[in-house]
Amino acid sequence: MIRKLVFQSDFGLGDGAVSAMKGIAYCVDGNLLISDVTHDISPFNIWEASYRLSQVVDFWPEGTVFVSVVDPGVGSDRKSVVARLKGDRYVVTPDNGTLTHLFLSGRVLEMREIDESLNRLQGSGESHTFHGRDVYAYTGARLASGVIGYEKIGERLELSSLVQIDKGKIQIKGSTITGTVEILDVRFGHLWTDITDSDLEAIKPVYGDKLNVVILHLERELYRGSVPFCKSFYDVNTGDELAYINSMMNLAVGIHQESFAKLYGITAGPDCKLRVSSAQAG
Amino acid sequence: MIRKLVFQSDFGLGDGAVSAMKGIAYCVDGNLLISDVTHDISPFNIWEASYRLSQVVDFWPEGTVFVSVVDPGVGSDRKSVVARLKGDRYVVTPDNGTLTHLFLSGRVLEMREIDESLNRLQGSGESHTFHGRDVYAYTGARLASGVIGYEKIGERLELSSLVQIDKGKIQIKGSTITGTVEILDVRFGHLWTDITDSDLEAIKPVYGDKLNVVILHLERELYRGSVPFCKSFYDVNTGDELAYINSMMNLAVGIHQESFAKLYGITAGPDCKLRVSSAQAG
Amino acid sequence: MIRKLVFQSDFGLGDGAVSAMKGIAYCVDGNLLISDVTHDISPFNIWEASYRLSQVVDFWPEGTVFVSVVDPGVGSDRKSVVARLKGDRYVVTPDNGTLTHLFLSGRVLEMREIDESLNRLQGSGESHTFHGRDVYAYTGARLASGVIGYEKIGERLELSSLVQIDKGKIQIKGSTITGTVEILDVRFGHLWTDITDSDLEAIKPVYGDKLNVVILHLERELYRGSVPFCKSFYDVNTGDELAYINSMMNLAVGIHQESFAKLYGITAGPDCKLRVSSAQAG
Repeated sequence: MIRKLVFQSDFGLGDGAVSAMKGIAYCVDGNLLISDVTHDISPFNIWEASYRLSQVVDFWPEGTVFVSVVDPGVGSDRKSVVARLKGDRYVVTPDNGTLTHLFLSGRVLEMREIDESLNRLQGSGESHTFHGRDVYAYTGARLASGVIGYEKIGERLELSSLVQIDKGKIQIKGSTITGTVEILDVRFGHLWTDITDSDLEAIKPVYGDKLNVVILHLERELYRGSVPFCKSFYDVNTGDELAYINSMMNLAVGIHQESFAKLYGITAGPDCKLRVSSAQAG
Repeated sequence: MIRKLVFQSDFGLGDGAVSAMKGIAYCVDGNLLISDVTHDISPFNIWEASYRLSQVVDFWPEGTVFVSVVDPGVGSDRKSVVARLKGDRYVVTPDNGTLTHLFLSGRVLEMREIDESLNRLQGSGESHTFHGRDVYAYTGARLASGVIGYEKIGERLELSSLVQIDKGKIQIKGSTITGTVEILDVRFGHLWTDITDSDLEAIKPVYGDKLNVVILHLERELYRGSVPFCKSFYDVNTGDELAYINSMMNLAVGIHQESFAKLYGITAGPDCKLRVSSAQAG
Repeated sequence: MIRKLVFQSDFGLGDGAVSAMKGIAYCVDGNLLISDVTHDISPFNIWEASYRLSQVVDFWPEGTVFVSVVDPGVGSDRKSVVARLKGDRYVVTPDNGTLTHLFLSGRVLEMREIDESLNRLQGSGESHTFHGRDVYAYTGARLASGVIGYEKIGERLELSSLVQIDKGKIQIKGSTITGTVEILDVRFGHLWTDITDSDLEAIKPVYGDKLNVVILHLERELYRGSVPFCKSFYDVNTGDELAYINSMMNLAVGIHQESFAKLYGITAGPDCKLRVSSAQAG
């Protein structure tokens, strides 16, 4: 089985940066299988990077190595690490919050700091702005290809030291649930929350029920309405709002073939909260 | 020979959706060769999806399996199918018009409905909004890798039931030909029609001849002019208009190094018609 | 070792053009490993194409074949060539300036003109607008897979005939250096010059020194200021300007987590010059 090496970054695909990382990886092992999560993470947006990893890692084969480079702190004392996940998967990344979602969902088993004296592209010592190429791609490729084992990465770090972005916990009071609008289903403008199908047991909605939804950014109310709980988009007409369980098995709200996010000016992230309750009960 | 699995969608590359589909495919068979048509189909634009498949399938090796997911009807009763094409190629797709161009050009040999009781990612039964991952990528990977044969997809469907988008036929009256501006050569703004080099026999233009061109959206005239029939862009000056035979061997009109579509506000599709006749004859 | 075939173009990824090129390559050899530099070169921008190749080729394994198609002159008498680089790497491209940076840096060892009577996709003779597919992808794939050797490309051309874009030489007068702002670090808006770390010996800056920087487009002054010479972005606060040695080991100027290019309206290219001197000396 060929080991997979999967890249993510905020570099975009418009220049040569991603290609340089992949080239370096193929220099380590020309038979690697290389693929991508996305390179369109918003510049410096560690939160998005964390979410996207969390969204995809479980769908990749065991043994896959992910390299995620959203690294506004390059040149600071932020640590470079490799996290070992369940299923013998690995993430090579700056420890700057990128591991938040994987850690909170219990998928990070241990973490080691990359020892750059052993794990850095030869001759790159004078380059200080592209650790994606010189450290992360290089180390990810060596790990994926078996040139080094995980224990050769460097010293083990306590998981308690892992840098997290605070997003708050789901709050359930009676039949009202408050969670975070974590991310947009970008192309379509749907809002994806962290409220799971299990959390929804507090409401026990069945398809067709109306849900009261309030969306707040910090304390500002951006939306208040009542939407049907549906199995899929097609249960409402084009242009109508709905709530549904998305492909991550979390609560989402959207508009059939239009953008909820655009219509109401909603930007996802840890400061964007969604409160849902049963309209029947209310 | 490694079998190829080639994805197309309207998901964009900005989130984790395409990566999740590819990961699932590699879980089916870690040695598949995976590539893409495009993931920048305009959201919900089945017509574009149909054209892009038609544009590329013949250039891929025999045996290639295409997975096309432009699926505004996910959750409706639209069927999920696999079409078998000439050259032992396959398209896994919702049957929502995506097969229009391949069908009209005689390249679809037969079609089967995907039996989701056999061909669906295990454990995905509660997810109702991402058949691209749970049904199409999974089935495409199993077909490409030989885990299942084509006959295991499900029941055979009559080709007469295949969902088509109506685009009208080429009309030739004397030396006037009317066809459809099917699509843009997006980056460059050229207009690509469905008028073939054979259709042009009605005019028999030779390089340098002037052609009268009228472009209509529904009944509204967007352009009327006379342009030279050229072998390639370089036969006119930068900024000058021309007609030419494009890489699909169809009639196209454009401006050398500028955008015809932008200048005249033209959006391609089944409602956009182009009428061409010989200026010499006219 | 699988030979690598790496594509670059100004086609974008929004239509089927890149996929058609890759499909043709896999038809030549289904076991090729295909990857990309970028397909987002600005339309017709040969300068960018030249820079991006120069940025990445050294990071790919020896033996890699690059296919670069930014070809505004398709249909003119511009030559189609294959350049042999140091490290047994190859570039298949129109000879229209795309090889400028590789040539000026001494990496082009020889060049042959593609003989299209031998090296052209069968049956494509009537297509005159897509040499990327019909000539370049096809020839690149045959070269990478070993179907043909380099000497079968066609006649050898003198390197003196190679088409170059004039960018002027670095000028060093005392402790003032004038170079070209060659390209943007697109996503982040930093300016990358062709002034090397060796050129900087004329100033001998140490980290923390202030540098006087003037940026001119043709004769128009776009920026004049004094910025600290830093090891990396994190040495200044968010929003502050800095100069640094980038991942190409060239002088760059930027703003920490903001866009220098956008703030001052700077477009890179051969007409954009940067003059740097020591503020201490000034």
